[in-house]
Amino acid sequence: MIPGPFLLYLGHSDDSVAIKTSRGLAEFRRDDCVGEFRHDDCPLTLGLPRMRMAQAAAAGARTMVLGIASAGGRLGADLVADAAAALEVGMNVAAGLHERLRNEPRLVQMAAERGLQLFDVRDPPADLTVGKGYPRAGHRLLTVGTDCSVGKMYSTLALTKALRARGVTADFRATGQTGILIAGEGVPVDAVVADFISGAIERLAPARHDGGWDLIEGQGSLFHPSFAGVSLGLLHGAQPEALVLCDEPGRAHMRGIPGRPTPGLAETLERNLEAARVTNPDVRAVGVCVNTSRMDGPEALRLCGQIEDELGLPCTDPVAHGAEAIIDRLLCVEPSALATTASH
Amino acid sequence: MIPGPFLLYLGHSDDSVAIKTSRGLAEFRRDDCVGEFRHDDCPLTLGLPRMRMAQAAAAGARTMVLGIASAGGRLGADLVADAAAALEVGMNVAAGLHERLRNEPRLVQMAAERGLQLFDVRDPPADLTVGKGYPRAGHRLLTVGTDCSVGKMYSTLALTKALRARGVTADFRATGQTGILIAGEGVPVDAVVADFISGAIERLAPARHDGGWDLIEGQGSLFHPSFAGVSLGLLHGAQPEALVLCDEPGRAHMRGIPGRPTPGLAETLERNLEAARVTNPDVRAVGVCVNTSRMDGPEALRLCGQIEDELGLPCTDPVAHGAEAIIDRLLCVEPSALATTASH
Repeated sequence: MIPGPFLLYLGHSDDSVAIKTSRGLAEFRRDDCVGEFRHDDCPLTLGLPRMRMAQAAAAGARTMVLGIASAGGRLGADLVADAAAALEVGMNVAAGLHERLRNEPRLVQMAAERGLQLFDVRDPPADLTVGKGYPRAGHRLLTVGTDCSVGKMYSTLALTKALRARGVTADFRATGQTGILIAGEGVPVDAVVADFISGAIERLAPARHDGGWDLIEGQGSLFHPSFAGVSLGLLHGAQPEALVLCDEPGRAHMRGIPGRPTPGLAETLERNLEAARVTNPDVRAVGVCVNTSRMDGPEALRLCGQIEDELGLPCTDPVAHGAEAIIDRLLCVEPSALATTASH
Repeated sequence: MIPGPFLLYLGHSDDSVAIKTSRGLAEFRRDDCVGEFRHDDCPLTLGLPRMRMAQAAAAGARTMVLGIASAGGRLGADLVADAAAALEVGMNVAAGLHERLRNEPRLVQMAAERGLQLFDVRDPPADLTVGKGYPRAGHRLLTVGTDCSVGKMYSTLALTKALRARGVTADFRATGQTGILIAGEGVPVDAVVADFISGAIERLAPARHDGGWDLIEGQGSLFHPSFAGVSLGLLHGAQPEALVLCDEPGRAHMRGIPGRPTPGLAETLERNLEAARVTNPDVRAVGVCVNTSRMDGPEALRLCGQIEDELGLPCTDPVAHGAEAIIDRLLCVEPSALATTASH
């Protein structure tokens, strides 16, 4: 577990997408964030107090989180210098970049000398095995999407929160760097060796017997030519009884692939259900989550109504309008879960 | 490139499946194999002269190939000792195990002192990138299967040979350790980081403009709960215009998963075509390859006839009966390929 509270790093960023990991922590673990660190050329803010490193440490921050996506996942000289400054004042450092903190000798030495820790959350566990697909106990929900970055993590977190509010035991299972930092644990499924994709997810959400739910964060899309292999292995490993489809309406093309249109909702859902049946023949869809943050209120409600009519499933923007309709459908599917009492 | 000729290692094996990499070299590169090395407790043979290390080196062997699958891909003390003995007499050593030769300091030092090389063919390239799925030039065929180890590599090699015999330029593109040792190059797709599966295949078979064919070795199965992610990323990255379905009839269950039946041929083909359309809407199936080595001749022919009737595609055991019918169908699909002259 990565010790909080956190100082969130924005660095020199001027791209709101690039700071998505810091923003995720600010949104979902705000009580664990004492402030944000940004250089003078950074026009962005998460609405937290701006602090220097020493101020943050004095305010109780135990870990500085490099919650940014640098070009190519690189750990450049500026990031190393800022990580060193955090260690200097007594904070651990966490990052989810492709280039690892532990491969920077200067940071490794400083951390060792001070009894501090470096957390590379993109590191998969070393002892993964292949998945087997044998039926296992427990209730599992997986979010799947038309594309990358359409709100699968936000939706999974919102559904987890809504289930808990009903008194149902529920745990968010993270599969990406932001989710892992929010949850404090998880498996960075895009970084595991290809043979172990489904095995990594079987380990992330093993058999459970307490009647509670694992809500597993999906990744990518079966229709994304870069990442579909990850999405399919994740789907098989998750062995979900419930799928929630996620979409961001109005996207001009699939993320990172100009010219490639996003797939339709019905087609995406059908293909995911079909593939999911390989490890759970009883899988079913329980709802659709759309990110309507770029639409006005009436337009968003109209869109949700259209999707409900088209797919016969509850559709909502879980951040703007809550996830109650989907939870209703989910718990109808499995009424026994209602009997479970909360343990959180 | 790994320098031949080779000495093929059987070690202490008494399991014919465990020596499949050595056997693949003995079958497809027999002229490059001077002999086989086995301990007295090994009852297996590839029909090559049995040689000690020094004998093999004297006979011209330049590389000893550890062509066996050990439990868990481990490089145990016995294998290290035999690899050291090969280096001692002046041979390079090649292996495709999960545990790497280069992580054995004793072997690294011996190789360095003698100017010899260690080849870990399971090492993926270090600079892979994500696939993009953009249409690219060239003719590509991919073998897909109902399961692992149903003959995809053998079929791909047989199809490559048959195409060349027609005067068509054709190259085998290897994706597994045995294929890589046979071809001398390739990408071990099950060992790449999950994000880079399709990108690795786009690099293995990039755009080509000579009118020739890339015949890409498939892996796993879209229905295998351990490896489907690899299979899907491979399928998207291959962007094939032609699929050949491979099957081993009579298998009791999917490889490594007792209790799980293998999928039907029609279902397997349909699912692969559907997924392949994500990167090539014009993909089509051109034939079925079955491994009938456990059937008698009339039974094998009857089965092929049944499959032809069911799927409307030529069906053959390419090892026993050749691949001509599939090549006919393939070249009908793309008659322009007939005009290509052989460059091999």
